[in-house]
Amino acid sequence: MIHTNRKWYEKHGPQGDVVISTRIRLARNLPKIPFPERMSQKQREQVEAAVHKAVEHGSAAIAQSLRYVNMQDVSRIEAISMVERHLASPDFISQTSGRALLLAADESISVMVNEEDHVRMQIMMEGMNLEKAYQIASVLDDSLNSSLHFAFHKDLGYLTQCPTNLGTGMRASLMLHLPALQESGIMNRIAGNLSKLGLALRGTYGEGTHSVGALYQLSNQVSLGLSETEAIANLSTIVMQLMDQERKARQQMVREVDKQDQIFRSAAILKSARVLSTDEMMKLLSHVRVGIACGLLSEIPYDTVNALMIRTQPATMSLAYGHEDAIPVQERDTLRAKIVAKALA
Amino acid sequence: MIHTNRKWYEKHGPQGDVVISTRIRLARNLPKIPFPERMSQKQREQVEAAVHKAVEHGSAAIAQSLRYVNMQDVSRIEAISMVERHLASPDFISQTSGRALLLAADESISVMVNEEDHVRMQIMMEGMNLEKAYQIASVLDDSLNSSLHFAFHKDLGYLTQCPTNLGTGMRASLMLHLPALQESGIMNRIAGNLSKLGLALRGTYGEGTHSVGALYQLSNQVSLGLSETEAIANLSTIVMQLMDQERKARQQMVREVDKQDQIFRSAAILKSARVLSTDEMMKLLSHVRVGIACGLLSEIPYDTVNALMIRTQPATMSLAYGHEDAIPVQERDTLRAKIVAKALA
Repeated sequence: MIHTNRKWYEKHGPQGDVVISTRIRLARNLPKIPFPERMSQKQREQVEAAVHKAVEHGSAAIAQSLRYVNMQDVSRIEAISMVERHLASPDFISQTSGRALLLAADESISVMVNEEDHVRMQIMMEGMNLEKAYQIASVLDDSLNSSLHFAFHKDLGYLTQCPTNLGTGMRASLMLHLPALQESGIMNRIAGNLSKLGLALRGTYGEGTHSVGALYQLSNQVSLGLSETEAIANLSTIVMQLMDQERKARQQMVREVDKQDQIFRSAAILKSARVLSTDEMMKLLSHVRVGIACGLLSEIPYDTVNALMIRTQPATMSLAYGHEDAIPVQERDTLRAKIVAKALA
Repeated sequence: MIHTNRKWYEKHGPQGDVVISTRIRLARNLPKIPFPERMSQKQREQVEAAVHKAVEHGSAAIAQSLRYVNMQDVSRIEAISMVERHLASPDFISQTSGRALLLAADESISVMVNEEDHVRMQIMMEGMNLEKAYQIASVLDDSLNSSLHFAFHKDLGYLTQCPTNLGTGMRASLMLHLPALQESGIMNRIAGNLSKLGLALRGTYGEGTHSVGALYQLSNQVSLGLSETEAIANLSTIVMQLMDQERKARQQMVREVDKQDQIFRSAAILKSARVLSTDEMMKLLSHVRVGIACGLLSEIPYDTVNALMIRTQPATMSLAYGHEDAIPVQERDTLRAKIVAKALA
């Protein structure tokens, strides 16, 4: 695929065989204004206006480049697609009044205004990119802070609505693909060990559980008493070990002819199916990823696989194909099959 | 595929979308010699010698062209492959002494000597070829009869060991592919109706049962009080109706996108699998046949599909790949996958 202006999720990054994406989130609040839970409509608008102004007049070029989106101007289907593209939370789009989103063109930066906190900055990047993502977050944070003067307490750090975010207000997460470790049946044990190290490993249905497509989210849980740099270093070190384990388990796994069979069949089905549910697609793409990593399907690029995971989400498909409402499920599964077959052809 | 000397099962015949093959079998016995069940070893050898001589000095070119195979010279794996290729019955190969097989180069004619009857002639042809196959059987029958003078009674017709074969001694069978009727769940009803008309419809596990790959054998049950021509006309008329029903049901069936999905997936899996059991292959080939018939997979020739059903049988694969013994199952499924992928590439 050739993209002139690719989104972050259409790219493939460092350690991309295991780490699909990196996310850094900073929670910030304006001083002397109640937290969103207790704000008046007027205060909500006041915060929105202040952030809008701070971005437009921000010192950093990165802040100025952001597009300002009033959530009241966004259709329901567009809003759901924003969630699918990891730009906004389900909670954020459930209410539109007094809420705004700031967006970078490649969708790697988004700022939710008046979600759980007044300001939630998020940097998403392809592959393992913790340092770089944090650096961008920092520049943006400094730029906004110069006019908004975020609420900060010398002992508690940045003040946040939920006490679990006090301190750095930072959550660093990595989306990991761990099919071999999942197949070994040791994910619960691994999640337990990581939890003792202050990290949470979440499957599709919560901590340590089985996950659709073997995708897991690993993130730091501690934001107090530890600097951002320390938290990131800690996460990096541990993820390097996890990657190593996963790669070794994969090498073992693909020696089996049944596994090779599953990989080649998965690619063939993705290229030929006429109906494809999200769950099945995620399962098949998971096998294909292993095939790419182990050299069995070297003709398929990772970035195509990455892009498909986002581009075939229901609302995102609706938007791309000019539907104003959700596409009915059967039609959606047919469209998904077409998109996947075309991308992999 | 280009074949200089193709076997009958590597071809595609008339009505080949539904009728895979035609089989005519004539049971004959020599006069004044007990039936095989009660023969002495000496009599067995006597019959064998007489048939051998009758073939060599037969009036018809067709008889002279047959290759004479003493079953004692045939390895176990070769004998099993003969069963897989429909040349001999499992019972026939269970004993080798005093048994011989006469074979045409394209394997469309085989004569078992000293199976259930002294002589069992069989003509196999691609597609619906009842008249032509019966014509060949007749020529061969006449040629052998001129020297062997088959036992014949004016009221009972040709004498056979089992009374159900008395009369014409003929069994005419068609191998039918009936996926759409099978999916409609009406096979038991159809088999019941056919039975009243003197025809037996057998699935993989007996009459009217579900069948692997939706393959059914339809044959006349009555050989007494009805001429060969009448029996064949009767079978033809009924199979034309059955074909019509099946084709209409297929047209209906392939309108569903889920069915189209199944067809395209099946072709893709057959081309890409690295491990393939017989059962799965038969199931997938069945879907592919429907795809060919309905124009969805027009690039795949029927003769390739027909040939695969025989060429991937265990003993036939062993023979083709120079193994003297049965190949272990796992290895066999891997080899089958290779053969299928290559044939469909």
